[in-house]
Amino acid sequence: MTDRIIITDVGPRDGLQNQLKILATDERVALVRAIADAGVSQIEVGSFVSPKAVPAMAGTDQVFAGLRDQPEYSATSLALIPNMKGYQLARDAGAKMVTMVLYASDGMAQKNAAMSMAEAEAVTVDILNCAREDGIEVVATVAVAFECPFDGPTDPAVVENVVARFMAYGADQVVLADTIGAAHPQQVRDLTAALVAEHGAERLGCHFHDTRAMGLANVFAAVESGVRRFDSSIAGLGGCPFAPGASGNVSTDDVAMMLAQMGFETGIDLGKLMLASDLAARLTGTAPGGRAKPWLQNYLLKTA
Amino acid sequence: MTDRIIITDVGPRDGLQNQLKILATDERVALVRAIADAGVSQIEVGSFVSPKAVPAMAGTDQVFAGLRDQPEYSATSLALIPNMKGYQLARDAGAKMVTMVLYASDGMAQKNAAMSMAEAEAVTVDILNCAREDGIEVVATVAVAFECPFDGPTDPAVVENVVARFMAYGADQVVLADTIGAAHPQQVRDLTAALVAEHGAERLGCHFHDTRAMGLANVFAAVESGVRRFDSSIAGLGGCPFAPGASGNVSTDDVAMMLAQMGFETGIDLGKLMLASDLAARLTGTAPGGRAKPWLQNYLLKTA
Repeated sequence: MTDRIIITDVGPRDGLQNQLKILATDERVALVRAIADAGVSQIEVGSFVSPKAVPAMAGTDQVFAGLRDQPEYSATSLALIPNMKGYQLARDAGAKMVTMVLYASDGMAQKNAAMSMAEAEAVTVDILNCAREDGIEVVATVAVAFECPFDGPTDPAVVENVVARFMAYGADQVVLADTIGAAHPQQVRDLTAALVAEHGAERLGCHFHDTRAMGLANVFAAVESGVRRFDSSIAGLGGCPFAPGASGNVSTDDVAMMLAQMGFETGIDLGKLMLASDLAARLTGTAPGGRAKPWLQNYLLKTA
Repeated sequence: MTDRIIITDVGPRDGLQNQLKILATDERVALVRAIADAGVSQIEVGSFVSPKAVPAMAGTDQVFAGLRDQPEYSATSLALIPNMKGYQLARDAGAKMVTMVLYASDGMAQKNAAMSMAEAEAVTVDILNCAREDGIEVVATVAVAFECPFDGPTDPAVVENVVARFMAYGADQVVLADTIGAAHPQQVRDLTAALVAEHGAERLGCHFHDTRAMGLANVFAAVESGVRRFDSSIAGLGGCPFAPGASGNVSTDDVAMMLAQMGFETGIDLGKLMLASDLAARLTGTAPGGRAKPWLQNYLLKTA
């Protein structure tokens, strides 16, 4: 256990792909830069998926190009990829980290990727092998790790098994995703405690949505278990286009504030984070903002 | 530890006293009845304070009178009182439970009650002695148990001492109030774990505000420590007129949903609770609603 927590802002990917408004490349670059300037450790910059399926993510290679002038942006940038073709596009675009999605249910694997759980695993193993040669880090994200909108509650044993396999395969990070925001904190506490006991916390992360207002409670529960890596989304942008009932990711605004108050080091400057959050709201016209944003902005004003 | 959790809805008091719109007696009665009909264990029906200081709470005796026809309403109704005069008014109105506020800071005691911490304690001891003879239960609520807007962070030792004294005096419940919604879950976990270890959980409760979006995280942290009594407010109504920076209480809507999902028995029918929440919104015109209310309403519709 350490006092440092790594935040990955997934807003420019998980957030923007769910907004009605599609942003221009330079807007996406500006948003990523603003988040990076606030000191966020890692940023999911975009995805290399079919532009027909997810129009908002077309041109992610140009977003990477727009970040190339400053090495600190490139170093913190991740790309979500659905398959080997996506991996190659991400690599060619200069991504140093890629996220590949695994599934804890066949229903979600079919709907989201038209694959079985086993097929998604096989693809990810192939990508891991390529990435090792290319010097690219791989994040293996286990979707619907707590509940699936198609198959119902997820058996923790299924998640424990897929996590164990990808820890053994040498994935650089393995992330439990509560894709539809259905997890409750006791469930999170129990599953993460078991996984940290088995694998340590070094490579384990969590990804929560705030659908049922339990985002921060779930982050706290995972922190208690020793988890020190979290996905969150600037201004609470987010959702999942193929998962009915999914709403915004837990917001980076709220997570950074809570962790700061709990004494953890995230590297984030809360004042600059509010600027990034304001920008996200302005660009999308729909960002809900962090739930605690009114309080936080008032506090920052008073203590400036 | 038990699987049953007692919810006290403080909306008709802590909520309504902070709304711009002052409700008529029959509207207040209707709101209390709706909350009681949803199965909420205890309801803070109003306060017996100066109508000049808190106009929204004038006529609380008439609210009690409006509940007298059904014994189950009277049995679950609490009155907040500031002093012995308030106690006598509450008793005469038929209250079977009263809440008296103690303070973990002198700054808040002065601003809220124009007393010192010690004076508020002395008054509460007098009230405890009267209430024992009258067969009335006393809830001793420790305000600013985590942070005070005037005196800053609260020393946990101060809270531990006042809780120990009122446990010893025989208070029926002792409630830790995060009056301005400043607590973070690790702080809650640590303090409640120490108090449950010392006094057991039977008479201990927690009262959280959602100012920084950590309301549910704090409820979970206290549940982990064994706390089984929580204050919350229908539709998230709330605040504190004398505490700068305080916003709404954590909503009963959210707390009841989370606890149900975690497998606890609260006695609450979530569908009927949504009716009470809708009524609160309609009557006040300002109720923010539970944060998870859109999700919960959709879920209840789909599973009806």
